[in-house]
Amino acid sequence: MKTLIVHAHPEPKSLNGALKDLAVSTLEGAGHEVRVSDLHAMGWKAVVDAADYGPDASSPLRVAADSGRAFDAGTLTPDVLAEQEKLLWADTIIFQFPLWWYTVPAILKGWMDRVFTLNFAYGVGEHSDTKYGERFGEGTLAGRRGLLSVTAGGPEAHYSARGINGPIEDLLFPIQHGVLHYTGVEVLPPFVLHSVDRMSAEDYAVAAKAWEQRLLALETTEPIPFRRQNFGDYEIPSLHLKEGLEPEGRSGFGLHVRG
Amino acid sequence: MKTLIVHAHPEPKSLNGALKDLAVSTLEGAGHEVRVSDLHAMGWKAVVDAADYGPDASSPLRVAADSGRAFDAGTLTPDVLAEQEKLLWADTIIFQFPLWWYTVPAILKGWMDRVFTLNFAYGVGEHSDTKYGERFGEGTLAGRRGLLSVTAGGPEAHYSARGINGPIEDLLFPIQHGVLHYTGVEVLPPFVLHSVDRMSAEDYAVAAKAWEQRLLALETTEPIPFRRQNFGDYEIPSLHLKEGLEPEGRSGFGLHVRG
Repeated sequence: MKTLIVHAHPEPKSLNGALKDLAVSTLEGAGHEVRVSDLHAMGWKAVVDAADYGPDASSPLRVAADSGRAFDAGTLTPDVLAEQEKLLWADTIIFQFPLWWYTVPAILKGWMDRVFTLNFAYGVGEHSDTKYGERFGEGTLAGRRGLLSVTAGGPEAHYSARGINGPIEDLLFPIQHGVLHYTGVEVLPPFVLHSVDRMSAEDYAVAAKAWEQRLLALETTEPIPFRRQNFGDYEIPSLHLKEGLEPEGRSGFGLHVRG
Repeated sequence: MKTLIVHAHPEPKSLNGALKDLAVSTLEGAGHEVRVSDLHAMGWKAVVDAADYGPDASSPLRVAADSGRAFDAGTLTPDVLAEQEKLLWADTIIFQFPLWWYTVPAILKGWMDRVFTLNFAYGVGEHSDTKYGERFGEGTLAGRRGLLSVTAGGPEAHYSARGINGPIEDLLFPIQHGVLHYTGVEVLPPFVLHSVDRMSAEDYAVAAKAWEQRLLALETTEPIPFRRQNFGDYEIPSLHLKEGLEPEGRSGFGLHVRG
């Protein structure tokens, strides 16, 4: 297994740092290759701007078009090219981050904004009567598995089906479905730790054991069965889910998971 | 009306730039005061790190605790203090941004991560048997109205109830409910433009007219009726929605909107 860990916490001695270190040692100990993109340590540039496309940037700047042109020409900045190369090298991608305001920290969002360019992550494949590009189950990163490892300050009850924050699987849907499944990655169920600001040494030992077990089972864990776009479940080009496919009472994001 | 516009697009001559400019001229033309935080023009720092807390940063860094201590002591960095002051000045807050990977661009997420500190945006109010802090309908920003103005590349059908991206109101829920309603802001229905990469001059004229009408109706538009945390709808401290309150068949994020 070749695993890329994308790590997004400013403090190496944090819980997130410990989980990242444990992932490296556990996977390497099991004979796997591991590479780490430690975004804070790398000084990752989070913000998309004209400097990303150098002298080839159009004026006015057109972010999507310019990123696709630079991708095609091989003129993306070296930091972005390096991340795209790591993604193509990996067969497994782990994202380690704290849930801040119900989603990823800005530095990790900026990694997605800058690395997932036109023609690499979207705008891939042909459009026809039976196909609307290669996305949601197909795409450049097809054949890879992805996993979110998330720490949350709030207790699990607040993120449950009736919890005030909304269900954790719905909060993560825009990342798991909208970013990973979109680009072809098979998404494993997330590893989520709750109430992390009140975590004792004993709690951490239990969490670390659970994390090791998830890591050693990466190759055999069943992915979330998100529906694939071009294989009969959706009308094209409206991309409406065809009537009657969902289990009774299912609505919202849950429609896009097979029953 | 005192309106703060938080603007997050790198190109002044973009559609987002035009919508921001139109908001300024329309509101000022109607006699209102307007301030703009143009995040790219300001060179907004998107990434949370120890530099945010200067010599007072703890080691190891504890982001939440350090941000709260710095807030209490008045030692947050000047850029963050200025944004908090603008939020307290405003009675209306507009966010203008392109939907990138189904949420805000990193620079705007970094504005939330850094400005919405402990004791300003969360950790406010007492916990008791009937109250779980002042949040979700109460909080520092109570009495203010907020509105997301969003441009999306994909067509409206893809963001509808059965559309493959998921419903736009669910994609925006973590921001509208998890960031704005959380801090006490009353959230107006979003202004969303679709298929913006294929927008003609005629399409823009129609969109601009609709945007002006929304802007001139800011004071009379009904907010989204998100449930308030401490007023009987939720069990405390589990913060589960009490059984039987929702309209039949409602689930997921929709539970947290009154029926």
